[in-house]
Amino acid sequence: MILSKFIKPVHAHCDLPCGVYDPAQARIEAESVLMIQQKMAGFQGDERTRAIIIKEQRAELVKHHLMVLWADYFKPDHLEKWPQLHDMFWKTIKQASECKSHSEPETGQKLLEMIDQIADIFWQTKEG
Amino acid sequence: MILSKFIKPVHAHCDLPCGVYDPAQARIEAESVLMIQQKMAGFQGDERTRAIIIKEQRAELVKHHLMVLWADYFKPDHLEKWPQLHDMFWKTIKQASECKSHSEPETGQKLLEMIDQIADIFWQTKEG
Amino acid sequence: MILSKFIKPVHAHCDLPCGVYDPAQARIEAESVLMIQQKMAGFQGDERTRAIIIKEQRAELVKHHLMVLWADYFKPDHLEKWPQLHDMFWKTIKQASECKSHSEPETGQKLLEMIDQIADIFWQTKEG
Amino acid sequence: MILSKFIKPVHAHCDLPCGVYDPAQARIEAESVLMIQQKMAGFQGDERTRAIIIKEQRAELVKHHLMVLWADYFKPDHLEKWPQLHDMFWKTIKQASECKSHSEPETGQKLLEMIDQIADIFWQTKEG
Amino acid sequence: MILSKFIKPVHAHCDLPCGVYDPAQARIEAESVLMIQQKMAGFQGDERTRAIIIKEQRAELVKHHLMVLWADYFKPDHLEKWPQLHDMFWKTIKQASECKSHSEPETGQKLLEMIDQIADIFWQTKEG
Amino acid sequence: MILSKFIKPVHAHCDLPCGVYDPAQARIEAESVLMIQQKMAGFQGDERTRAIIIKEQRAELVKHHLMVLWADYFKPDHLEKWPQLHDMFWKTIKQASECKSHSEPETGQKLLEMIDQIADIFWQTKEG
Repeated sequence: MILSKFIKPVHAHCDLPCGVYDPAQARIEAESVLMIQQKMAGFQGDERTRAIIIKEQRAELVKHHLMVLWADYFKPDHLEKWPQLHDMFWKTIKQASECKSHSEPETGQKLLEMIDQIADIFWQTKEG
Repeated sequence: MILSKFIKPVHAHCDLPCGVYDPAQARIEAESVLMIQQKMAGFQGDERTRAIIIKEQRAELVKHHLMVLWADYFKPDHLEKWPQLHDMFWKTIKQASECKSHSEPETGQKLLEMIDQIADIFWQTKEG
Repeated sequence: MILSKFIKPVHAHCDLPCGVYDPAQARIEAESVLMIQQKMAGFQGDERTRAIIIKEQRAELVKHHLMVLWADYFKPDHLEKWPQLHDMFWKTIKQASECKSHSEPETGQKLLEMIDQIADIFWQTKEG
Repeated sequence: MILSKFIKPVHAHCDLPCGVYDPAQARIEAESVLMIQQKMAGFQGDERTRAIIIKEQRAELVKHHLMVLWADYFKPDHLEKWPQLHDMFWKTIKQASECKSHSEPETGQKLLEMIDQIADIFWQTKEG
Repeated sequence: MILSKFIKPVHAHCDLPCGVYDPAQARIEAESVLMIQQKMAGFQGDERTRAIIIKEQRAELVKHHLMVLWADYFKPDHLEKWPQLHDMFWKTIKQASECKSHSEPETGQKLLEMIDQIADIFWQTKEG
Repeated sequence: MILSKFIKPVHAHCDLPCGVYDPAQARIEAESVLMIQQKMAGFQGDERTRAIIIKEQRAELVKHHLMVLWADYFKPDHLEKWPQLHDMFWKTIKQASECKSHSEPETGQKLLEMIDQIADIFWQTKEG
C-alpha cells in the first residue's frame, strides 16, 4: 500500500499537549502555490484574480506552518547541531512572501526546494 | 533519504487554480488529536483544559480537510467506482466530532484508521 | 412558497453542547453570492476584484455551513429515510465551488435552489 | 409572535457587492448560546470545559454579526427615525459579552430578546 | 528611548479576564490601509489585485478592533460624559468600509483622523 | 495631547503593499497575557477555563505578530548589524508558548521584556 510510504506518524518529544509536527503541512501548501503559478500563465481576468487570492492564502499558510515548526518543534540542542536553521527558516518564510508578489513558477519551485532542505534536517532529528 | 518516501507530490487534474489535495492534511491533525488524548489520562486542571481546547481545534481541522477532500477532489466517476465514499466521509467526519467530546484514545485511533481507509481509495484514484 | 417553511426557530435535540442547526445560515450566504453575481455584470476594475474576493468568502461559508449541517445534524435514521441526502449535500457543496469560479447569476440561483431542497428535507425531519 | 416577522429573505439595496443582511445570523448564534447555557447546569469536567469553549465562540459570532448589521446595514436616515439604535446595539453586544462570562440561561434569554428588538426595527425599515 | 513614549501600558478596570485595550490596534491597521492606498496610484494588474485583497483585510481588522473598543472598553459613565461616542464609532467603522471600496488616500487619511479623535477621548478616560 | 506620544506612525521602506510594522501589536497582546495571568490566581472553575481560552488566543497572536515582524520587516542588512535577532525572535516566540502552558505572571512579564528588547532594536533601525 502506498499509504505507509508517505504518512509516517511523527512523535515529537515536546511538553505541549499537541506534539505532532510534520514539514508536509508547509510543503502541501507550497505545492498549491507552485501549481497556481504554473496555471497563471494562461489566466486572465476573473480567473487570474481568483488565482492571486488563493495563492495569497496558501503562501500565508506556508509561513504559518514554517513558523510553528521553527518555534515549537526545534529545540536548543537542534540549533547547536544545525546553527544554520534560523537563517534557513527566515529565508524560506521570506521566499513564501516572494511567492505572494510573484507569479513566476520559479519562485514557487525555489520555495519547495527550501522547504525540502528544512525537512531534510527535520528528519535527521528523528533518527537515532 | 526518508523524505522522498513520505512527501509524494500530488497533482490533481481539477479545474480550480488550487489543485493540490492530500489526505495527509487530515491525518496530521488526527494524529494530534490522538496524541492529546493519550496524554490526557495524566492531565488535570489547567493542563487538561488546554488539552481540550487544542483537541477541539485539531478535530475541527480534521473535519475541514475531510470536507475539502470529499467535495473538491472526488469527482462523479470516482463515486461510481467507490459508491461507499459518501458514507465513509460522513462517518469519518462524525468520528472527528466524537473525538471532540471524548478523551479516550480509542476514538482518536478509530479516526486515524477511518482516514487511512479514505486515503487508500484516494491513492487508488492516482494509479493507472 | 417553500421558503417560509424552512426558516423558523430550530431546537435540535442533539448530544452536543451546541445543538442549534438551521439551513438559513447556508442560505443567507448563498443569497450574498447570488446578489454579488447579479451586480458583477456592471462591475469592472477594482470593484470587480472586490466582488470576487467577497464572493469567494461567502461561497466558502456556504460550504462550511453545509458541511456542519450534513455531518453534525443528520443522523443514521435520517439517511435511511432520505438516502439521497449524501449526494444532495455533495452536489450542493460542489455547486458552491462552481459559484466561486463563475460570475453568472444562474450558478448562484441554482445553489439557492439546491439549498432549499436540502432545507425542505431538514424541516421534514422536524415534523412529527 | 415577533419571530416570524424577522426571519425571511432580505434583499438590501446597498452600495456594496455583498448586500444581504439578516438579523437571523446573530439570532441563530444566540440560540446556540442559550441552548449551551441550558445544558450547562448538568455539565461538569471536560463536558463543561467544552461548553465554555463553544459558548465563547458563539457569543463572539453574535457580536460580529451585530456589528456588521449596525455599521454596514443601518444608514443615517434610519438613525434619525430610530435614534435609540446606537444604544440598543451597544447594550446587545455587551449582553453577548455577559453571556461569555455567565452560564445562567437568563443571560442568553435576555440576549435573544434584545436581538429580537433590533430585528423588529430592522424589519420595519424593510416596510413601505 | 523612543519606546517608552509610544507603548503606554493600559490597565482597564473591566470584569473580563482580558482587560487590555488600546486604540493603537485599530490605528496600526488603518495606517496600513492608508499606505496601501498611497501606493495604489502606481499599481496595475496583479499588484493592484493584491493591494485590494490586503486593504480589504486591514480595513476589516480596523472595524473589528473598533467594535471591541466600543463595546468592551467603554462603560455607561463614559457614554454619559461623551454622548457623542456612539456616533463617532459608528461613523468611523463606516469610514473603514469606505476605505474598502475606495483607493483614494483621502479616505484612509480621514479614517486615521477619526480614529485619533476616538483615541483622544479614550486617553481622557485614563486621566484623573 | 497624550496621543502624539504613543502613536508614532511607522513608515517601513518595504516592497509589499502593506508596509506598516509596529512591535506594539505583539506587545498589546502580551500585556493581555500578563494581565490574565495576574488575575488567574483568584480564578477557579468556569472563570479559570475562560482565562485559559483567552490566554491561549492572545499568546497565539503574540507569536503571529512576532513572526510577521521577524520575517517581513527585518532585512539582511539588519541581520548583519544585529546578528542576535534570529535567536531573540526564536526565544521570544518560545516564551509566548511558555505563557500558554503557564499561569505564573513571571512568564508573561518575561515575555514583555523580551518583546521590549526586540522593539528596542526595531526603533534603532528607524533612526538615521
